[in-house]
Amino acid sequence: MLIIGLDPSLTCTGWGIVAKSGNRLTHIANGQVKTDAAMALPDRLVTLDRELTDVILRYRPDTSAVEEVFVNKNPQSTLKLGQARGVCLLTLARAGLPVAEYATRLIKKAVVGTGAAEKAQVQAMLKVLLPGVKLAGADAADALAVAITHAHMVR
Amino acid sequence: MLIIGLDPSLTCTGWGIVAKSGNRLTHIANGQVKTDAAMALPDRLVTLDRELTDVILRYRPDTSAVEEVFVNKNPQSTLKLGQARGVCLLTLARAGLPVAEYATRLIKKAVVGTGAAEKAQVQAMLKVLLPGVKLAGADAADALAVAITHAHMVR
Repeated sequence: MLIIGLDPSLTCTGWGIVAKSGNRLTHIANGQVKTDAAMALPDRLVTLDRELTDVILRYRPDTSAVEEVFVNKNPQSTLKLGQARGVCLLTLARAGLPVAEYATRLIKKAVVGTGAAEKAQVQAMLKVLLPGVKLAGADAADALAVAITHAHMVR
Repeated sequence: MLIIGLDPSLTCTGWGIVAKSGNRLTHIANGQVKTDAAMALPDRLVTLDRELTDVILRYRPDTSAVEEVFVNKNPQSTLKLGQARGVCLLTLARAGLPVAEYATRLIKKAVVGTGAAEKAQVQAMLKVLLPGVKLAGADAADALAVAITHAHMVR
């Protein structure tokens, strides 16, 4: 089973794909979709949709999981994030993928063993769980952690 | 020139289409896309995208305008609205439409003459500006007001 995980944001959405076979996890690919802050918002959302669709068509995942949103105290940031997240959910569901959602604390607990883990600990554990993985960046790492969490949950 | 206006929300997105010919405005159609709160969020966003795409394909507007968001004090509401709004902007831009955005106060000022107008005043003015219009509901009325605002601005 191929699982795609996403960590949505308007500036940089992370994606990560793992294969689960029995209890075995394998890294397939990870990356980041960046959108140009100089572009108009609708065009940035089109870029996000198009690049995620390309990833889905290339790897043909069976299911998907998305990080639940940290609701920022700044309403404008929450709105921006919501707009990008809405596009991510639409792109996955339109491709026919089931979409699971996991809170950040649950993801950290699934990957590191504690919901209070630091980002560096998550990234260190990714390298243990997915030997040889090269991380495209911090957002791609978060996305792989979401995919791994889903792999644990569907066990 | 055909202009589509949208008033995005997850529960009920209003849409309204007007034709502008010189200084003359004509009502073409208005309606509302409702999504079922019992459905999962990604499926609700798919419904919103699909029904708006149907409207765009049926009427083939030349350009579009969307109400700017009132950032709610409740971050969860802002997030929900953001997710629906992101899908609306994507759907319009993916269809090749330019997307303008107008603040609520500007819309009320363009339609009624004062930014502090009540909803009932906006709806009364719609009936004056678009004789014979039948409003599908309050959100469709807001969407027609956005379309009319854009018609004024591109004059």
